[in-house]
Amino acid sequence: MPPKRYDVVGVGNAIVDVIAHVEDEFIVANSLPKGSMTLVDVDRAIELYASMPPAIEASGGSAANTMAGVASFGGTAAYVGKVRQDQLGEVFRHDIRAAGVVYEQALATVGPPTARCLILVTPDAERTMNTCLGISSLLEPADVDEHLITAGRVVYCEGYLWDVDSAKAAIRKAMTMAKDAGSKVALTLSDMFCVDRHRAEFRHLVEHDVDIVFANEAEICSLYETTDVAEALRRVRGHVEVACVTRGAEGSVVLTAAEVVQVPAWSAGSVIDTTGAGDLYAAGFLYGYTRGKDLFTAGWYGSIAAGECISHTGPRPERSLAELFAAVPSPTR
Amino acid sequence: MPPKRYDVVGVGNAIVDVIAHVEDEFIVANSLPKGSMTLVDVDRAIELYASMPPAIEASGGSAANTMAGVASFGGTAAYVGKVRQDQLGEVFRHDIRAAGVVYEQALATVGPPTARCLILVTPDAERTMNTCLGISSLLEPADVDEHLITAGRVVYCEGYLWDVDSAKAAIRKAMTMAKDAGSKVALTLSDMFCVDRHRAEFRHLVEHDVDIVFANEAEICSLYETTDVAEALRRVRGHVEVACVTRGAEGSVVLTAAEVVQVPAWSAGSVIDTTGAGDLYAAGFLYGYTRGKDLFTAGWYGSIAAGECISHTGPRPERSLAELFAAVPSPTR
Repeated sequence: MPPKRYDVVGVGNAIVDVIAHVEDEFIVANSLPKGSMTLVDVDRAIELYASMPPAIEASGGSAANTMAGVASFGGTAAYVGKVRQDQLGEVFRHDIRAAGVVYEQALATVGPPTARCLILVTPDAERTMNTCLGISSLLEPADVDEHLITAGRVVYCEGYLWDVDSAKAAIRKAMTMAKDAGSKVALTLSDMFCVDRHRAEFRHLVEHDVDIVFANEAEICSLYETTDVAEALRRVRGHVEVACVTRGAEGSVVLTAAEVVQVPAWSAGSVIDTTGAGDLYAAGFLYGYTRGKDLFTAGWYGSIAAGECISHTGPRPERSLAELFAAVPSPTR
Repeated sequence: MPPKRYDVVGVGNAIVDVIAHVEDEFIVANSLPKGSMTLVDVDRAIELYASMPPAIEASGGSAANTMAGVASFGGTAAYVGKVRQDQLGEVFRHDIRAAGVVYEQALATVGPPTARCLILVTPDAERTMNTCLGISSLLEPADVDEHLITAGRVVYCEGYLWDVDSAKAAIRKAMTMAKDAGSKVALTLSDMFCVDRHRAEFRHLVEHDVDIVFANEAEICSLYETTDVAEALRRVRGHVEVACVTRGAEGSVVLTAAEVVQVPAWSAGSVIDTTGAGDLYAAGFLYGYTRGKDLFTAGWYGSIAAGECISHTGPRPERSLAELFAAVPSPTR
């Protein structure tokens, strides 16, 4: 990798999570698509929040969680995403900076409030997300600073941003800048329904603009409109430098033209809340990748980060991932 | 107890907690009085927050935590405390209502923001609190609704409110209304330094206006300016109908003119964060007391509630205290 100021620069929806544990009946009664992310407007968010049990608030946002994970491994990370100058915006800014991520974007003084995601965690630890995008959806090309973007060895973008045209334009600008500066472009497909909404664009991106793609099995199957995971893996393999496909408790598979590497999962014990698991897997993989590690080791960094994340409520690491990685014996391949 | 609409009506500072886990070095480096509550102004809060690690936000406030605990046992509870119409105010209102507590106070549309307490939890699970009172300190007699106060079998007040004159006047009004309506008046001494600041008034209150007092050993010793706990217990015993003195891992002692009852502590396993332990002890005791239970049983409700509270980060129950109480075998006296 070229020497640059940051290992990874992430671009995404800047969100504060509002997390409550509920029974499955709550998901059914509120007609929510379990395990997925639904965009909700303000009225629906207010209605859903009113029916939720007591909650905690914790900074989230997919790419922001990933950047916090990279920093927790000891990597260098910066973040681009929009919050308002309000209480949750200050919480978001505090937490990402306190995690060691460079975040210099000014708090917006006008516009809708900082984004919130109402997250319902069921007893099986699965999370069902309801995002009220607020000002994060007003990310636009002017927010993408060339000096910052081109300072990343990898520029990491969220698929979620495709839901809003101006944000999509911001990401396309960032991708172009990254390419021109010799940086790698990484994309997470984010969510199965998000892939459904943007399948043609995502497929074109993966096949032409992206160097590293992250997806889970449902997302990669949706991308290629198949129910056969093996078929989806075969399709993506030839079209992108590296594809990382996460498989829950089965670990992940990392594919390049030359290799297909199976990586085991890692667990710290009980699984409490899977929110952020994919984001943290990406953090670990990108940390290893930018450090020049082999694919198996990079994937194992991802497994450690995801395993820590699902052991507690909340989407960001609660302990040093560098220390955790050092403490856990590496598996034999 | 007379039949009334609510078992307990609480009055206190309505606060959202901002909780981070830190090493002891952080407490020393920031010259904080470990284990106590310090009032901080906005500038100091900003400075301290900037130096804190990533945090989570959770609704708090001593009397509000107690009301959430009463409701979790299946008791009826209402709350009086002031928040602003801002994001944290909405969080506070949501969480206390979702806990089953009646909270009808309108969000203030002018004035300082909703109160925040920056809480630093050290590896020994001790919490060190830094409160920026914001609008909660503007509680005034006009906020005390006679219909609500007189509907409580017990009116429960925070010692913390004595730090602000208008809030003190509000509490005195509530206490007078309660007395006139045949309700019991309960007071928590809140904090050793708070007792230091208001010793003469607190002693007068306990000896003349209060029926039930809650304190830990440090607070009751401070009230009577002694280092001898036995001496402090002897002093308080004759002066109040019921005194509940919590003793950490040693449990509690409940004193009336007729009895001195030792109650064991209860633990669910590791102690993670002691924030709210005293508040939840009071919740359990008051639930038992208003249900006409004997002093030992009421204290044991307190032990169960405190034990649940310290087993996780955050000051309010994460599971049904009624179910927990039913599941844990009662000790023999």
